[in-house]
Amino acid sequence: MPVPHPDPISAASYSAVELCPENDAVLMLDQRRLPSEEVYERLTTSTEVARGIADMVVRGAPAIGIAAAYGVVLAARRAKSRDELGALAAELRRARPTAVNLMWAVDRMLSCVERGADAPALAEEAREIHRADVLANRCIGALGAERVPDGATVLTHCNAGALATGGYGTALGVIRAAVESGKRVRVLADETRPYWQGLRLTAWELHQDGIPVEILTDGMAGFFFSKGAIDLAVVGSDRIAKNGDVANKIGTYSVACLARLHDRPFYVAAPWSTVDLGCPGGSAIPIEERSITEITHLGDRRIAPEGVGARNPGFDVTPARLVSAIFTERGVIDPVGEAGLLALDA
Amino acid sequence: MPVPHPDPISAASYSAVELCPENDAVLMLDQRRLPSEEVYERLTTSTEVARGIADMVVRGAPAIGIAAAYGVVLAARRAKSRDELGALAAELRRARPTAVNLMWAVDRMLSCVERGADAPALAEEAREIHRADVLANRCIGALGAERVPDGATVLTHCNAGALATGGYGTALGVIRAAVESGKRVRVLADETRPYWQGLRLTAWELHQDGIPVEILTDGMAGFFFSKGAIDLAVVGSDRIAKNGDVANKIGTYSVACLARLHDRPFYVAAPWSTVDLGCPGGSAIPIEERSITEITHLGDRRIAPEGVGARNPGFDVTPARLVSAIFTERGVIDPVGEAGLLALDA
Repeated sequence: MPVPHPDPISAASYSAVELCPENDAVLMLDQRRLPSEEVYERLTTSTEVARGIADMVVRGAPAIGIAAAYGVVLAARRAKSRDELGALAAELRRARPTAVNLMWAVDRMLSCVERGADAPALAEEAREIHRADVLANRCIGALGAERVPDGATVLTHCNAGALATGGYGTALGVIRAAVESGKRVRVLADETRPYWQGLRLTAWELHQDGIPVEILTDGMAGFFFSKGAIDLAVVGSDRIAKNGDVANKIGTYSVACLARLHDRPFYVAAPWSTVDLGCPGGSAIPIEERSITEITHLGDRRIAPEGVGARNPGFDVTPARLVSAIFTERGVIDPVGEAGLLALDA
Repeated sequence: MPVPHPDPISAASYSAVELCPENDAVLMLDQRRLPSEEVYERLTTSTEVARGIADMVVRGAPAIGIAAAYGVVLAARRAKSRDELGALAAELRRARPTAVNLMWAVDRMLSCVERGADAPALAEEAREIHRADVLANRCIGALGAERVPDGATVLTHCNAGALATGGYGTALGVIRAAVESGKRVRVLADETRPYWQGLRLTAWELHQDGIPVEILTDGMAGFFFSKGAIDLAVVGSDRIAKNGDVANKIGTYSVACLARLHDRPFYVAAPWSTVDLGCPGGSAIPIEERSITEITHLGDRRIAPEGVGARNPGFDVTPARLVSAIFTERGVIDPVGEAGLLALDA
């Protein structure tokens, strides 16, 4: 099913999130059902949008930010007072804790309200956030692609693609741009337990684009690094602290450690909206703890022994020293650290 | 359901494999169905035993070896000639390539045949292999437990427990012995994709023994190492080369890399039957490639996008330099290397 929107900003045959032309509903691709079903939910309240974010109908820091911006558009239509709007905005902010793009987008929309924007102007602001994200990804892709050699095998973790953003993707944008520039690139995609974003989403996106991709389990990266079969790793991010520490999907830190131990570059690709200069370092980034049923169960079926628990941190932090470079639309940060980030903080 | 055997050598309420008292059948616990069902298959031919090994009804290098020894008992009952016995033995050897215990056990049984053993003597030889494995595990446990501090949190990967051996377990034997000696030990068990041996089997065994265990996805170890939440890692092995390189379940090498990077010990526990002094180093160990449907499917249901492939090496090799010590029933090898192994090769 194509995007049920006449002019999607994603500019692709699918879109994580779009605002309907009448500004009265948000279309959200239910990523939990990919790749077996391509189904869009039509959400008409900001509460539904917040729930869609919390339940991972949409995921990926930039896409969450865009969804929240559209959520504020719906909230403003419904709210009868500034206080009510504030409460609905707070509900959006609380939907997930780690991705700073969510807070950034809600703040930007609320300051637009403060400036007295009317409903059409508010919708335009949200769409502008969306459009700017796609443009940022194109720029990130172009900058990052310069670091991808022709013939490279690239490891990625989770999904930092079109589905995680407004379109095109961050880490997958780097891969797409390398391919578009004529380079031959092969991708190894960590399946990314417990939520399978690599197996379900990254593989789906890349396969649609005809980019060769094979799935690994999350324990295999070391093996392929040791065989010299991985040339570089590139991932997205949910929050980048002022010192260059990078929060991303659980498992990312292990990939960074393995890349370092095997002397291969580990890159992070993210829009500037992911940078949180108010956060001094990785230890200050809130790490979401999700339900352990994501691990003990497959759907409704328990696979772990009765009575056994699990741990489920949703993210981990990779210290700046393990990150070879960060690609943003404002430029490449290399070496990674406070000075490099502040230099781009125009 | 208890072991349907009057006097199981495992000495536990369950057993990976046992020979029936009449020497006419092998009881094999179907580990694919654990933890939801505890079902034993009754196998009456060596071909069925070979299939049980290949299909992972039984798995774990020592348990595979014992199953194959019992398989030779069944083969000798049926074979009408030495050639036929040789063919059936070869079928057992081919069942899986990486665990050297399989080849070792078949060789030992065939040399017993060569020495003119009759059917009861052959069955006794196989039972002796089984009994010796349980004793070895007790010894490995006692030696290894000395390296486990009171209050330790121990990471393990895959299942190197009673289910992977004749009983008691190697890596889990170390944990059991530490607990039996009065130490408080908590276990973090990698779920171990794609076959979930950690989530299904390690968690099941430890929970039955009342040893605290929590499941991690395979990408989480780095996070918990970085938090200082893991004191040591201990795993089993499918083959140990003469230089001390260790083959074990895919994902083990990543654990060893992370342990080293975080300055925590990484231990290997294995019976001497796992040591292959005829194998000069890890690069000479055959690594089984298994069906990619183990990754792309859950049971019969495809979860990966149509048309997308995967990689599925079943094992990886951890170089000796990353192994802090190897615990065997002949003693502890520390430092790990050829000299230490040869010193125990009595």
